[in-house]
Amino acid sequence: MEKLECFFCRKQYPLDIFFPFCPRCSEPLLVPTPSRRRTFSLKKKYSLEQFLEFLPLSKVDLELSLGEGNTPLVPLNRIRTQKRLPFVFAKNESTNPTASFKDRGTSVAIQKAVSLGLQRVGTVSTGNMAASTAAYAARAGVQSVIFVKKETSPEKVLSTNIYRPLLVKIRGDYSRLFYKSFDIGKKYGIYFMNSVDPFRIEGYKATGFEIFFQLGRRLPQYVFVPVSSGGHLIGLIRAFHDLRKEGLTQSFPRFIGIQARGCAPLAQAYARGQTKFKEYKNPNTIAHAISNPNPPGGNIALELIRSSQGMILSVSDEEILTAQKWLAECEGIFCDPASATTLAGLLRLSKTGKLNIRDKVVLIITGSGLKTLGDLEISDTNIPEIFLSSLDKQIPHMLL
Amino acid sequence: MEKLECFFCRKQYPLDIFFPFCPRCSEPLLVPTPSRRRTFSLKKKYSLEQFLEFLPLSKVDLELSLGEGNTPLVPLNRIRTQKRLPFVFAKNESTNPTASFKDRGTSVAIQKAVSLGLQRVGTVSTGNMAASTAAYAARAGVQSVIFVKKETSPEKVLSTNIYRPLLVKIRGDYSRLFYKSFDIGKKYGIYFMNSVDPFRIEGYKATGFEIFFQLGRRLPQYVFVPVSSGGHLIGLIRAFHDLRKEGLTQSFPRFIGIQARGCAPLAQAYARGQTKFKEYKNPNTIAHAISNPNPPGGNIALELIRSSQGMILSVSDEEILTAQKWLAECEGIFCDPASATTLAGLLRLSKTGKLNIRDKVVLIITGSGLKTLGDLEISDTNIPEIFLSSLDKQIPHMLL
Repeated sequence: MEKLECFFCRKQYPLDIFFPFCPRCSEPLLVPTPSRRRTFSLKKKYSLEQFLEFLPLSKVDLELSLGEGNTPLVPLNRIRTQKRLPFVFAKNESTNPTASFKDRGTSVAIQKAVSLGLQRVGTVSTGNMAASTAAYAARAGVQSVIFVKKETSPEKVLSTNIYRPLLVKIRGDYSRLFYKSFDIGKKYGIYFMNSVDPFRIEGYKATGFEIFFQLGRRLPQYVFVPVSSGGHLIGLIRAFHDLRKEGLTQSFPRFIGIQARGCAPLAQAYARGQTKFKEYKNPNTIAHAISNPNPPGGNIALELIRSSQGMILSVSDEEILTAQKWLAECEGIFCDPASATTLAGLLRLSKTGKLNIRDKVVLIITGSGLKTLGDLEISDTNIPEIFLSSLDKQIPHMLL
Repeated sequence: MEKLECFFCRKQYPLDIFFPFCPRCSEPLLVPTPSRRRTFSLKKKYSLEQFLEFLPLSKVDLELSLGEGNTPLVPLNRIRTQKRLPFVFAKNESTNPTASFKDRGTSVAIQKAVSLGLQRVGTVSTGNMAASTAAYAARAGVQSVIFVKKETSPEKVLSTNIYRPLLVKIRGDYSRLFYKSFDIGKKYGIYFMNSVDPFRIEGYKATGFEIFFQLGRRLPQYVFVPVSSGGHLIGLIRAFHDLRKEGLTQSFPRFIGIQARGCAPLAQAYARGQTKFKEYKNPNTIAHAISNPNPPGGNIALELIRSSQGMILSVSDEEILTAQKWLAECEGIFCDPASATTLAGLLRLSKTGKLNIRDKVVLIITGSGLKTLGDLEISDTNIPEIFLSSLDKQIPHMLL
C-alpha cells in the first residue's frame, strides 16, 4: 500500500488522497524517498518519461500530458554585465502549456488521479494553479472544481473558465478555504490537488533536474525561488536531494526563497531565527501569486532552506516592479510580479558582497506577465498615435 | 555576396535587407536553397543550433536566443474519438517565449540583424509579431520600432510595450503601412523584419523539421495552418522541401491553409482557381491575427499550396469560436481564435469524407488565448460567487 511520510516526525501513513496531512503535527505529508537506485531516461522526449523513476508513478499515460517541461534556461548576460552580477540564468517556467510552473505539479497529480480512478479533481488558487488544474482535468476528461478568491483578476478567471471547470469565487478567509476544500473533497470524492499536494510537489522536482542537466551536469551555487505556499520550493530542493542520493552531485545549491514585503510570513520567521512561522496579518502586495499569509508548507520550507544554508528574503513592490521591467527591457522576458521577486532578491543580495562573481545563479521565472497585465503601471492610452500620412515627418523626432 | 531569389522569375538579387522584394514582379524574395548537402544536429539543445545548416546563418549567437522552439506535439485523442477524426496532433507554438509562432522567425531575423551590425529593427503587426520583435530586440540591445493598427487590443499593446520599443499606433490603411515601413526603414536604418521577411520565413522551417522528428522521422498526411500574410505557410512548406531534398522523405504532406471567412482573399482565389489573389474588401473577423486583406506572400502561398495538392479553406467566426472552446474543454489547450481555425477547418474537411481515418493530421496552434481574452464570449461576471460559510450547502447542487 502506498504511503506518505511526515517531514518532521518521520512517521509514515497510508495514502489518503483526500487529506494528505500528518495526523500528529498537521504538516503536509510528502512522498517518501525510496531506498532503491534510480536512473534518468534523458533520451525520452516527454519530461514525465525522462524523470519517471523519480516520480511517484508506476507508469506515464502520455494522453494526459500537455507536453509540459523542457523549459529554457536562458543566460541573462546583459543584466549580468550592467549590474556586475555573477553568471545568472532564468529558468523560464512561463513557457509551460498554461504559462506557469504549476503545470509541472498538475501533470503528475493528474496522472495519480486517473490511476486511482478518480472522476473529480479540484484546487484552491489565486490564479495560476486554477488554470493549470482546469486544463489538465479537461484533457483527462474529469470534472474540475476550482475555488478562487473573490478578488481574483478577470484575466485569471477567464483563462481558467475557458476549460469549463466548476469555477466558484469565494468570499471569506482564504486560509480557511484551503482546509475547508479537503472536507468538501472527502465528502464528494473530489481530489483537491492544492499547493502542497505531495504528488504536485514531486512534479516540481523535474525543474530542478532540468537545471542540473542544462548546466552540463553541474550545480548552480544559488537558486532564487518566489515562495508562497512553500510547495514549489520543497519540490525543487527535493530534486537536488535526489541528485545527491544517486551520487550525481556531492555539494548542494543554496536556495534563496523570496517573498514580497507585503506578505512575508516566512522571511519574517527566518529573520527572527524561528523554526515555525506565524500568520501574516493584512497582506498587501502586487505579487498576488505569492500572497499567502499562512503558507501550509511554510515550516518545511523554513527547515529545508536552513539546511541548504540558504535564506528567505523579502523585497518591496517597488523593487518587484523595477525588476519586472528590467527583465523585459534588458532580456526580453516578460514575467509576472511574483517571478520578478527573484531578480529583485538577487540585486539585493549582490549589494551585500556575499556573491562570488564566478558563481552560477538560477532565477526561477514562475509565471507569465500576460496573466497580470492589469498590474502594469502604464496603460495603453499613453502610446502615441500617428496618422500614416504624417509618419515621415514624425519618425525622426521619435528615434533614439 | 549574399543573394535572395524571386520565387516566380527565379532570378537572384543581392540582399537588400531594407527592401527584400523582387524589382521585376514585386513579390517577396526568398533565401535560395543551397545546392550543398546539409545535416541536422539533433543532439544540440537549442533549436537554432539543431537546424543551423538549414538556416541562412553562418553561426548562432546564443545570447540573442530566448530558448524558442522545441514546442510540444500533442496528440488530441479525445477530440479524435468524439468527432471520429484521423490521428490528430496539435503543434503548440503558443509555448514559445512570447507565446506565439512569431518567435521562430524573429529569432533568426535578429541573428541576421546583429551579424549585419544593424542597430535598429522594426515591424508592422497586428499584435503577436509586435511583442516578439520587441522582445528579441530588447534581448539583443537594439532599438525596435513597432507600428500597430490603431485598433490593436490593449492586451497586445501592453504586452509589446513592456519591452520598451518605440511603439506607435497608426491611423490609416494597414497594407499601405506595410510598404511605407520599408521606406522609413531605408531612410533611418531600421531593418523592418515584417511578416514575409526572408530570414523570418526561414525561421518557420524549424517547426516543420520538429514535426517530422517528433513523429519519429515520418510525415503527417495533412498540415493545417492559419494563413495571414502567407509567411508562416511558406516557411513550413520549405521545411518539407528541405527534408525531401536531403533524401529524408520521398512524399510530401498536404498543406491546408485556413482563413477566416470575414477576411479570405486566398481562400477566394483558391476557390476560383486563380493564381493571383485580389485584395479582400471590408475585412471583419474575430480572428484578428490573420485578418490581412492584402497578404504580401499570398501569391507564393497559393502556388505552394497547389503544388502540395493542398487547399485553402475559410471558416466562419462561429466555427472558430466553437473550435476554440473544443480545444480548451476537451484537450486543455487554450489558443487564440486564429489558431482555432485549424480545428474548424479539420472538422469541415472531415465531413467531406476526404480524410482517411489512418491519416496523421497536424494542426499548427500559432498563438495563446491569453492575448485575446477580450474576444471570449463570456465575461467573468457570469462566474458564481459564494460565501465560504455556505459552500457546504451549495456544492452538491453544482456538481455534475
